[in-house]
Amino acid sequence: MPTTHITRLPEKGVHDRTQLDALLDEALVAHVGLVADGHPVVIPTAIARDNDTALVHGSTGSRWMRLLAGGAPTCVTVTALEALVVARSAFESSMHYRSAVLFGRFTALSGPAKLSALDVLVEALIPGRTRELRASTDKELAATVVLAMPIEQWSLKVSDGWPEDTAEDVAGDAWAGVVPLLHGVGTPGAAPDLRPGIDLPPSVRALAVER
Amino acid sequence: MPTTHITRLPEKGVHDRTQLDALLDEALVAHVGLVADGHPVVIPTAIARDNDTALVHGSTGSRWMRLLAGGAPTCVTVTALEALVVARSAFESSMHYRSAVLFGRFTALSGPAKLSALDVLVEALIPGRTRELRASTDKELAATVVLAMPIEQWSLKVSDGWPEDTAEDVAGDAWAGVVPLLHGVGTPGAAPDLRPGIDLPPSVRALAVER
Repeated sequence: MPTTHITRLPEKGVHDRTQLDALLDEALVAHVGLVADGHPVVIPTAIARDNDTALVHGSTGSRWMRLLAGGAPTCVTVTALEALVVARSAFESSMHYRSAVLFGRFTALSGPAKLSALDVLVEALIPGRTRELRASTDKELAATVVLAMPIEQWSLKVSDGWPEDTAEDVAGDAWAGVVPLLHGVGTPGAAPDLRPGIDLPPSVRALAVER
Repeated sequence: MPTTHITRLPEKGVHDRTQLDALLDEALVAHVGLVADGHPVVIPTAIARDNDTALVHGSTGSRWMRLLAGGAPTCVTVTALEALVVARSAFESSMHYRSAVLFGRFTALSGPAKLSALDVLVEALIPGRTRELRASTDKELAATVVLAMPIEQWSLKVSDGWPEDTAEDVAGDAWAGVVPLLHGVGTPGAAPDLRPGIDLPPSVRALAVER
């Protein structure tokens, strides 16, 4: 397994599990890497955290999900972009980001653990939504793979500083600063087949406040 | 090389190169997968497109950059999240996204091609910035790897529909719709060491309009 020791810009390494958890909890999507026939494959997929476990899910029809469920070595990367760092040179220009890399292997969940993990996945995207939905059917559950990976081998990098220009560049005429990248939610649009009289549920109303 | 034939939800497959280019041009970051000692590694990095080539860059001190420069088989995945799809069941709940997967190998650029690729990378993040910056120094160029991969083997998936609930669920009481995810830029903050009298440059002023 590749080391989680950070060799590049080690000063950006963060060893605080609380900050890792915060990133995993805020993220909607992870990029999951695996090796298929010797080649790397990276797939985006919804991610959630249940205590010390990272959760993803997908279709039983997906080859990648089957490989992951079979215990293929995996890298789960979660990235939040937070600002553009506008420096006085191309070299020092960069971004504010938080980036977590987790190494390990997934195992497929079944029974009550699978049901509860699916709830965690739904709640991670839309808090409060599970109590507004009917239970999943056996057919739906049979078509869904839910995978769990222990959060054990991980690294976290956080870049959040000002541009680090040389004294010579600072003395020059170029502007330098940070431009925040903002993420929010817009106005919910009702499905064309929504029956009249069904109001926006509390979970969706709360999204505008939460995100 | 893994096939770029989409087996899951093939109806979401898009074969229009224009749409691929639009996604690559809008994206700030790609997740690049490679294999190191038999294990997958996924690293987030800034991405840009120059005609039929995907460009990334990094430090000569990065092990991953050296492996990529050496021609390691690579997967470049670019994802844009555009909405939460709030369905009437957990099973049908999903997201609107555009997701591109490119397979291939990078080669390291040098000479004028390297200089011009660095400009393309800067312009992709902050259009117009190159003409406000001094030229890179030889020392900076020596510390930077610039990598190019031909855009040849790729797939693109676009999910942008309404929830696809069953007739039985549509007849029920649950709300369904789509909640847009918004991305924008905030107010630029000047670096603490910015010299007085240096105004916000046109490139940074334009960002608020562009993004």
